[in-house]
Formats: sequence, C-alpha cells, structure tokens
Amino acid sequence: MSLRACPRLVSLEGGEGAGKSTVLDALVAHLRASGAEVVATREPGGTPLAEQIRELLLDPRHEPPAPETELLLVFAARAQHVREVVLPALQRGAWVVSDRFTDASYAYQGAARGGDIDFIAELERRVVGIEPGLTLLLDVPVTVGLERARRRGGADRIESEQEVFFERVRAGYRARAAAIPERFRVVDASRPPAEVAAEALRHLQRQIEAAA
Amino acid sequence: MSLRACPRLVSLEGGEGAGKSTVLDALVAHLRASGAEVVATREPGGTPLAEQIRELLLDPRHEPPAPETELLLVFAARAQHVREVVLPALQRGAWVVSDRFTDASYAYQGAARGGDIDFIAELERRVVGIEPGLTLLLDVPVTVGLERARRRGGADRIESEQEVFFERVRAGYRARAAAIPERFRVVDASRPPAEVAAEALRHLQRQIEAAA
Repeated sequence: MSLRACPRLVSLEGGEGAGKSTVLDALVAHLRASGAEVVATREPGGTPLAEQIRELLLDPRHEPPAPETELLLVFAARAQHVREVVLPALQRGAWVVSDRFTDASYAYQGAARGGDIDFIAELERRVVGIEPGLTLLLDVPVTVGLERARRRGGADRIESEQEVFFERVRAGYRARAAAIPERFRVVDASRPPAEVAAEALRHLQRQIEAAA
Repeated sequence: MSLRACPRLVSLEGGEGAGKSTVLDALVAHLRASGAEVVATREPGGTPLAEQIRELLLDPRHEPPAPETELLLVFAARAQHVREVVLPALQRGAWVVSDRFTDASYAYQGAARGGDIDFIAELERRVVGIEPGLTLLLDVPVTVGLERARRRGGADRIESEQEVFFERVRAGYRARAAAIPERFRVVDASRPPAEVAAEALRHLQRQIEAAA
C-alpha cells in the first residue's frame, strides 16, 4: 500500500506565526482567477465533525490528551476530512488548498511529541492514502513566529507550549522537507508577507502547469 | 509486542439490552463487600475527554463518522481511558470493572462495520497494550436485546442501526469468545436478571481466587 499523489492537492505547513493564512488566501485567489474551482480547508478540521475534534484537541477545560490520544484524534479528524471534503473535491476536478495536512502529524505528534514515526506512517497509509502534489513549508525562526502569534493574541493549548517544543516542530518539518524534495518547497517566511506570497505563487504556478 | 493480561481488570461485553448495567452493579457490590477498592468505568468514556469523544460518536447533529473515523475515535478514547483511569487503578491494586473494553471494537468496528481486524489488533497492541483477566460476554438474541433497549427509551445513533448490524455485532462477539476461551465467559443473558447476575458473580469469584 503506497500513497497516491494528488497534483491538485496543495498543503501549507509551518509552525505558529509562519503566515499560513495570508499565503493560503493568495493561493486561493490565484487559482480562482485562473478559473479553477478551489476548496480552501484546514486540519485538524474541515468538516463539522472534524472541527469538533479540533475543539477537543485545543480545549484546555478537560484533561490534556495523552500523546497517543492526540495522535489518534488528529488522524480521526483527517480520515473524516479526506473522505468528506478532499477526495470528493479532487474527484470533480477542483483544487484543494489545505492549511496543514499529514506532514503536520510527522512534525507535531512525531518529532515534537516523540510519537512513533512508523506508526504515523502506517496511519497515513491506512486512513489517508493520498499525499499532496505540492507542499509549501513556510519556515520561520521559532522566536519570530511565536512573537507574531503572540501579537495576534489568543493563546490556546498548543500555543502555550514551551519554545523547545516549537524548535522540535520546526526541525521535524525541515527534516521532512529535506527527505521529500520532489513534493516540498521550503519558503523563507521571515521576509515581508508580500515577498513570501509571491514566492508561494511562483511554486503554485509551476504546479498548475505540471498538473495541466 | 504482546498484550499484558491484567487479572484485576474485568470487562463486560454485549449488545444493546444485554443487561450490562445490572451485572456491573452486582460485580462492583460483590468486590466492595470483599473489601477491595473498585473502579467502575465504561467505554467509550471514563475520563472527561474520553466522555466528550463518546458524545461525538453518539451525537446525531453532525455528519456521521466514516468507519475509519469511528475506529480511531474509539481507540483515542480508549488510549486516554487506559492511561488516566485503568492503569493507575490497577497499579495501586484496585479492581477495574469496565462496561466494554477493546473486544467491543472487534465486534462493532470490526465484525459489524467491516473494519480491518489486523489494523484493530495493531491499534490494540500500540495504544492499549493490556487485556482483561476476565471478560463476561452477556449474550442475548438480537430481537430480545433490542426490545429491552427500546423499552428503556432514548435511541441514539448506534441504537437506530438496522437489526442486521446487531446480528453482526453478536456474531463478532461470539466468534471472539470462542477464539479466546481462557479469558471469555459467555453468559446467557436472555434469562431473568437475578440468574444472569448470579452466574456472573460465580465467574468473578473464581477470578478473585485466581488473582489472589
């Protein structure tokens, strides 16, 4: 069982304050201007049930999930998102731009929380089954990203983690990008947002041409 | 990696209307009368987070979970329940009586919903790691159980499934009990509640003596 690469599925990855939302808006606008149908979505979430799972993950009112619980909740949300949103959209020829996808589990539940990478890979094969055609990693030094996220306000459970956690997330993302260069493009997201978006759009344009 | 058998962990299994609650009360009272500490719990659930996962599974307001989503949600709740409730109780020498445990996933998500049994077994090894010393399967014909459940009122998502689904659950449970006779005791739960409870208590008493 291997993963099926989906040329019209584009994922955005990166830690807190990397500027994913701004880039996502730019990608969606560019695709829509080209006449394509675009589904903009996010993980964990993207369906009513998956968004409720997201709330469970971020809600500080109950006890924190054990690492294994967090891993399975994230993949439960992803299983739902893929079946209800991603696959139907791809099947009708739409583009899907997702704020995070499976790579986030390798970085957060794997590299940062110490989850077993083989188990993550097996969950990916068994309940996801697909991978993006293009993954943009918005890479920013942790201190810069956290400062941006704090200015934005509203720290939830994930955002209240220690800096060392986010260093592990960043290292996990960068290692994964280095291991899968054919799919990943690493974008230096410490630059001004307009420059970051412009580079992201250049990568997207190449993907549009490749997917045509 | 194999499962660790826990002599003081007792699980109750069975379909709708099998009378698990009544038997559970009797088992707990018997253990308490013997001077033991007893934790009575249930799956999916048993912790605040796991109970919220249970609500997601039973809530008919959002879209139904895909089979893979349901499987991962159930095991997410179980991972949390085992770490927060079951293992700490067993480690301090308490008995744990659980209304359903991992066997329920083999019957519901496996036999009834067609989930991959190898994947269920791998989730069990990876995120549960333990198995009960005694599992009581309260076995009752589907029509009898559903009639009891309907009289009790309050049908949720699971209870509104078709009868054929519950036939598959029952067959799955019985096949599992036949495959693991050293741990399972099958109790004919179509008899009056007092007789069912009396037989369950005899099995428990033997387990108390074996665990001493």
